[in-house]
Amino acid sequence: MAAVLAAQAGTTLELIDTPVVTIDLDVMDQNIARLQSYLSLHGLRNRPHVKTHKIPSIARMQVAAGAAGITCQKLGEAEVMAEGGLDDILLTYNVLGEAKLERLVALADRISLTVTVDHADIAAELSQAMRRAGLMLPVLIECDTGGRRCGVQTPAEAVELAQAITRLPGLILRGLMTYPTAPASGAFMGETIHLLKTKGILVDVVSGGGTPGVWTVHEIPGFTEHRAGTYVYNDRNTVAAGAATLSDCAMRIMATVVSRPTPDRAILDAGSKTLAADLGQGVAGHGLIVEYPDAVLAALSEEHGHVDLSLCRRAPNIGERVSIVPNHACVVSNLHNEVYGVRGGRVDVVWPVDARGAVR
Amino acid sequence: MAAVLAAQAGTTLELIDTPVVTIDLDVMDQNIARLQSYLSLHGLRNRPHVKTHKIPSIARMQVAAGAAGITCQKLGEAEVMAEGGLDDILLTYNVLGEAKLERLVALADRISLTVTVDHADIAAELSQAMRRAGLMLPVLIECDTGGRRCGVQTPAEAVELAQAITRLPGLILRGLMTYPTAPASGAFMGETIHLLKTKGILVDVVSGGGTPGVWTVHEIPGFTEHRAGTYVYNDRNTVAAGAATLSDCAMRIMATVVSRPTPDRAILDAGSKTLAADLGQGVAGHGLIVEYPDAVLAALSEEHGHVDLSLCRRAPNIGERVSIVPNHACVVSNLHNEVYGVRGGRVDVVWPVDARGAVR
Repeated sequence: MAAVLAAQAGTTLELIDTPVVTIDLDVMDQNIARLQSYLSLHGLRNRPHVKTHKIPSIARMQVAAGAAGITCQKLGEAEVMAEGGLDDILLTYNVLGEAKLERLVALADRISLTVTVDHADIAAELSQAMRRAGLMLPVLIECDTGGRRCGVQTPAEAVELAQAITRLPGLILRGLMTYPTAPASGAFMGETIHLLKTKGILVDVVSGGGTPGVWTVHEIPGFTEHRAGTYVYNDRNTVAAGAATLSDCAMRIMATVVSRPTPDRAILDAGSKTLAADLGQGVAGHGLIVEYPDAVLAALSEEHGHVDLSLCRRAPNIGERVSIVPNHACVVSNLHNEVYGVRGGRVDVVWPVDARGAVR
Repeated sequence: MAAVLAAQAGTTLELIDTPVVTIDLDVMDQNIARLQSYLSLHGLRNRPHVKTHKIPSIARMQVAAGAAGITCQKLGEAEVMAEGGLDDILLTYNVLGEAKLERLVALADRISLTVTVDHADIAAELSQAMRRAGLMLPVLIECDTGGRRCGVQTPAEAVELAQAITRLPGLILRGLMTYPTAPASGAFMGETIHLLKTKGILVDVVSGGGTPGVWTVHEIPGFTEHRAGTYVYNDRNTVAAGAATLSDCAMRIMATVVSRPTPDRAILDAGSKTLAADLGQGVAGHGLIVEYPDAVLAALSEEHGHVDLSLCRRAPNIGERVSIVPNHACVVSNLHNEVYGVRGGRVDVVWPVDARGAVR
């Protein structure tokens, strides 16, 4: 496989068969630099979330540009990144169960690893595993500041959990974490830090996250670092959220028109197994066809994209190639074995998506 | 990887870490046998679609049970299946472009391969490639009998394309194909066969497809074979369509409750990168939690399943394992590197999903 991939470097993009995921490297470089410079300007550490690309080489580029470390969403993702040379990882996930704790200990012994917790039982399990291994694990308390995912529900709950953690051997309480950072997050974090101080507990990390609201996180006080993932590629959702423009979208899915059953319909060789079925927020269809912006990628079957051309003045022919900006870049990465990095219309690099499918 | 997988055979299911895709092999065996016996009873050849499982071993079981061959949806899928010993493949896809035609020729030289076409230009390209290679390729004409995917739109168009194909060297017109088989399909196919006869064109294959309506396809006249995919596992969509019961669903995603942020919410370690975001037709949520049928898997983030427990009388604890019947089995297969075949609560076999990600 590696040999096949290497052989395609230097090839003109048009010679790469479809469907294929391409990354415009100039655009990606700009996205990486822009966020780094924004966060640096505001004194926030940058800890990009690698779930968007799942590629150690890109994570290393983010660190080389100034990131303090990276964020992973599953233990398996973190293992792949550690294997790829990343040595400062925040795993924003409750890790539990014997099998995962064993792997967690091995990883914590190897790199600088921090994990989040939102419950005393999980902290107790982590503590036991770390104590047995003779390791100290830094932890952040996950706070639900409105995102309604995991997390303690109130500053009082956060303080209670913090007190439990400080009593547990093998764990070091480093701070707080939330997703996504929103105006309400500032008040929650501020009150928690204040309450912790009254109990004599000092922490030095307050970690926020998210791409859609990333350019205003400096207005929300109390945070020390930010975790953005999608910004590295951007997609229709980040454009719809106002966090990027279409020209900031580095990921494209190149597809071919394989059928034109009627004058108002085209069928592409990219369906839900290529694009993922996620509908965007406030965007029509399953992706934007760059060359035919009035076309609507109205439905996906597994290997076919169904395009409604009824609003188009011109229509693509059978065999014509088109490029699609996906609704959600992160789930596209997770479908593909490799992505093609492109510069000036030529393939510069082919990256295996090493952490693809790392769900455990 | 193979060694790791082999080491897990014989293990109690509870010892396999989550999230993990399991296949109940007794249920799958039954599903395979039941459809084979139904189609055989009605004199229809069985040509199961492997897009649901993407595993050559399961395809071989389907053939061993009596299937005449298999169906693939992408050339890459067909290559993996040929590599896995399957030697009679129908590829229900317009194949075009130099790169794919080269691979198609290599595959047609190696196994008994039939492809579908819905346009004279595609037939002409196929013809040229086959003639150059000195091969004869059997083809079926794809007919849109209401599914609104690819396909010629009318019997008259089908006849026109058939006449074009019969004039092209390297191609043998074998018959017609449609998806899905529906009551209207019978009339379309019947009229086309009649018109073809008046032109002196005789064909011997009329291929229909689909799982939701599979148990009544014998009532629709004129078909010689059927391509069903999902029936091998079944899922919430096939249950909602009345084509299976819950006890016929062989695929489960085993997941663990990783957070209980509030009394009415649980968070699972299975999100859209594990379950796929496809919503079902006429079913609530992103999958059925077997142990908590009143719980609603209301939303998915990438690595978290958000469960609404507000209708439940009892609720799962952190660390508790649950099993999920997915809405759409085929897209779940495409997310996972392997599935675990289970019999009597023990892992019998671990299959790599060899054709996962074969989008080209």
